[in-house]
Amino acid sequence: MTAPSASDTQPRWMLERRRPRVIIIGGGFGGLYAARALKRTAVDVLLLDRTNHHLFQPLLYQVATATLAPTDITAPIRWLLRNQDNATVLMEEVQHIDVARHVVTTTDGMEHEYDYDYLIVATGARHAYFAHPEWETLAPGLKSIDDAVEIRRRVLTAFERAEATDDPVERAAWLTFVVVGGGPTGVELAGMLPTIARRAFRHDFRRIDPVNTRVVLFEGGPMILPSYPDELSDHARRDLANLGVDVRTGAIVSDIGPHHVRVGDEMIHAHTILWAAGNAASPLGRDLSTGLDRAGRVPVDSDLSVPPHRDVFVIGDLASITTKGKPVPGVAPAAMQMGTHAAKNIRRDLEQRERTPFVYRNKGDLATIGRYRAIADLGRVQLTGVLAWWFWLFLHIMYLAGFRNRMSVLVEWAYSYFTYERGARLITGTGVGSASREEPVPGRW
Amino acid sequence: MTAPSASDTQPRWMLERRRPRVIIIGGGFGGLYAARALKRTAVDVLLLDRTNHHLFQPLLYQVATATLAPTDITAPIRWLLRNQDNATVLMEEVQHIDVARHVVTTTDGMEHEYDYDYLIVATGARHAYFAHPEWETLAPGLKSIDDAVEIRRRVLTAFERAEATDDPVERAAWLTFVVVGGGPTGVELAGMLPTIARRAFRHDFRRIDPVNTRVVLFEGGPMILPSYPDELSDHARRDLANLGVDVRTGAIVSDIGPHHVRVGDEMIHAHTILWAAGNAASPLGRDLSTGLDRAGRVPVDSDLSVPPHRDVFVIGDLASITTKGKPVPGVAPAAMQMGTHAAKNIRRDLEQRERTPFVYRNKGDLATIGRYRAIADLGRVQLTGVLAWWFWLFLHIMYLAGFRNRMSVLVEWAYSYFTYERGARLITGTGVGSASREEPVPGRW
Repeated sequence: MTAPSASDTQPRWMLERRRPRVIIIGGGFGGLYAARALKRTAVDVLLLDRTNHHLFQPLLYQVATATLAPTDITAPIRWLLRNQDNATVLMEEVQHIDVARHVVTTTDGMEHEYDYDYLIVATGARHAYFAHPEWETLAPGLKSIDDAVEIRRRVLTAFERAEATDDPVERAAWLTFVVVGGGPTGVELAGMLPTIARRAFRHDFRRIDPVNTRVVLFEGGPMILPSYPDELSDHARRDLANLGVDVRTGAIVSDIGPHHVRVGDEMIHAHTILWAAGNAASPLGRDLSTGLDRAGRVPVDSDLSVPPHRDVFVIGDLASITTKGKPVPGVAPAAMQMGTHAAKNIRRDLEQRERTPFVYRNKGDLATIGRYRAIADLGRVQLTGVLAWWFWLFLHIMYLAGFRNRMSVLVEWAYSYFTYERGARLITGTGVGSASREEPVPGRW
Repeated sequence: MTAPSASDTQPRWMLERRRPRVIIIGGGFGGLYAARALKRTAVDVLLLDRTNHHLFQPLLYQVATATLAPTDITAPIRWLLRNQDNATVLMEEVQHIDVARHVVTTTDGMEHEYDYDYLIVATGARHAYFAHPEWETLAPGLKSIDDAVEIRRRVLTAFERAEATDDPVERAAWLTFVVVGGGPTGVELAGMLPTIARRAFRHDFRRIDPVNTRVVLFEGGPMILPSYPDELSDHARRDLANLGVDVRTGAIVSDIGPHHVRVGDEMIHAHTILWAAGNAASPLGRDLSTGLDRAGRVPVDSDLSVPPHRDVFVIGDLASITTKGKPVPGVAPAAMQMGTHAAKNIRRDLEQRERTPFVYRNKGDLATIGRYRAIADLGRVQLTGVLAWWFWLFLHIMYLAGFRNRMSVLVEWAYSYFTYERGARLITGTGVGSASREEPVPGRW
């Protein structure tokens, strides 16, 4: 028996005397921060994303409610990495990861294979309907720009239909918006709808009064925003009630149809139903681990790698990890911190130093309610109302400033926000619907 | 034999003692200006459009080339008319006009009927493929925001594919853009493509150099911009050549496939083909007249009504009319002037005064070439190059100022224009394509 040769113990790239290759899948917060953190490391980075853009997801609900334009909250990934010479960006969708062969298979119409020395998987989560996949087309969720544009189309079209119909029952159904799920996305959507109806649409209609818009928020658990302290959750509920949102907790949706939602014995007649009640992690996790958690997330070691594959890291919403005795939440700051940390552990490998464990530093949780209120949980300090909203605005402006690198973009953005940018009220993607077979209705005018 | 009764000679609304009803179909330049011109007239206006937005069409090519965002050049029609109490706006698509019954039939999923005392039809034109309807999906045209977003998707995706492929022939085909048609739209598209490739994409790619982008402009006639004086047309051709555009006149396209264009004996291998070679007027014209011209337009009397229907006006690109011995061109200023004039003739009817004939006042024709050049034909004065471009910019800013009513929107817009707004480079609408059945290709990196 001979001693193991160098080729058995050393990674391939060490023998081949080339720079190690790091593949990052996903250009969200986690993937982008991982790529940036590798800027001065002697590696080649390949970032793969099925879209061409990074998305500032915390403001996605504002696109869905026609307040900001899609282009306000996106930037091309390759533009964000334009000054990082060791990074290549390709718009391809990863189909499969082969951890044994160290290869990812992608498609952009053609299939491609890329081999890696290190892999960082940051493909996040989608909204999920669990036992009711048939609800997806009836009650769209909000994760991507395409989702937001679809919700915007439905919301704006609902007001158009309400204005056009002569039937008071139909009109009420078009002016009723149901949001399922009382987490941050559900609360932000529900809070924004009465606000735009009252403010942005104030003078625009002749036959309806948008003030009569009804918004119902259903949450299955006992409280909305369950991850927040009880006082803040109660405060948010009062803020929503003040905006006219009908908040129902302990309300399990049992049926959704094109024109109704059923909760217990109650049937709500509504044409617009939005889904914010659950997430499931990216299916790529199945290629990495057989021990996925209930939400499909990949359990990772303290260094963020997926045992037993020390060359594969999982970060962001796809990762399941507990630090300081608490599960790390699926929020943007956690994804950014994990991205930076995974990159740091790759660098430590190359420097032949020990990897370090990831520790999540929670700088605070924030959720907006309508246009000028928010709640903020900063650990020792809690903020509510207008003060919390100013804090929210400050943080987002700080972030966007770093992100897009130009103060003037912020001015533009702030301007859009405060004036209810009219252009954002754009219905695209489909016509007004096909003709029914019934007799034409004489129009009231 | 008795004298004709009042009800035989007087319009219905005069007998019923209600305000006359004016239906306007289409919220483009013609329809919007007609509605606005009726603001102080004692009529009820109903404006019907199948979209919810007015579109600043002269800048549409900038959305198609990812320079401006869709929301920069649109505004909700009902918002534009929010302060005009006698105007109701409905998002419905007109299916049929019954000139005998004075009724239009619409659909928004349900059918509706609306009766009118006056009708103004301003439904414009679509791009047309004449004998080759099968070319529509291969070579999209540019008339609506949805068209522009589709062209933007194809253009941006082409650069992504060029970056991803290892095959030099494929890469060249992805970097080849063919524009069919040398009118203003074709020239503006063709001039913008090398500009964005060189400027906006400069640092963003690792495997391709966007400077190698090839743009070919085919025009069937002997000159590009045939409606302009020869000197200006020649000047535009030189400007295009300086930008690197390969301009071919007298070049009739005989075949288009997903990956090629054939002109005479020459076959050009290109994955992105754009169509700017022809328009056909809205099919609603067929409900109004049996004497449509070659392009499907409705011949109108000098007062803009459609003989013999004095209560029906046709304006804008759908109208065929000659004033001062010249056919009125299908341009935005002509549509605006016709809209205002049709409204004026309705007002004169109500005041029991004679209608007046429409006279087109041509204030000049303008076309931009790339980002900083234009040609302007102002009758006695002709401008070219940067000077013409400044003139173009000034005019558009003046117009937008009136249109959106806020100087700050212009600042925003100008900012986007000069900085190549990055967010505008957004691919939406589809994934990256389905997997091919072939063997995966090892990725080069």
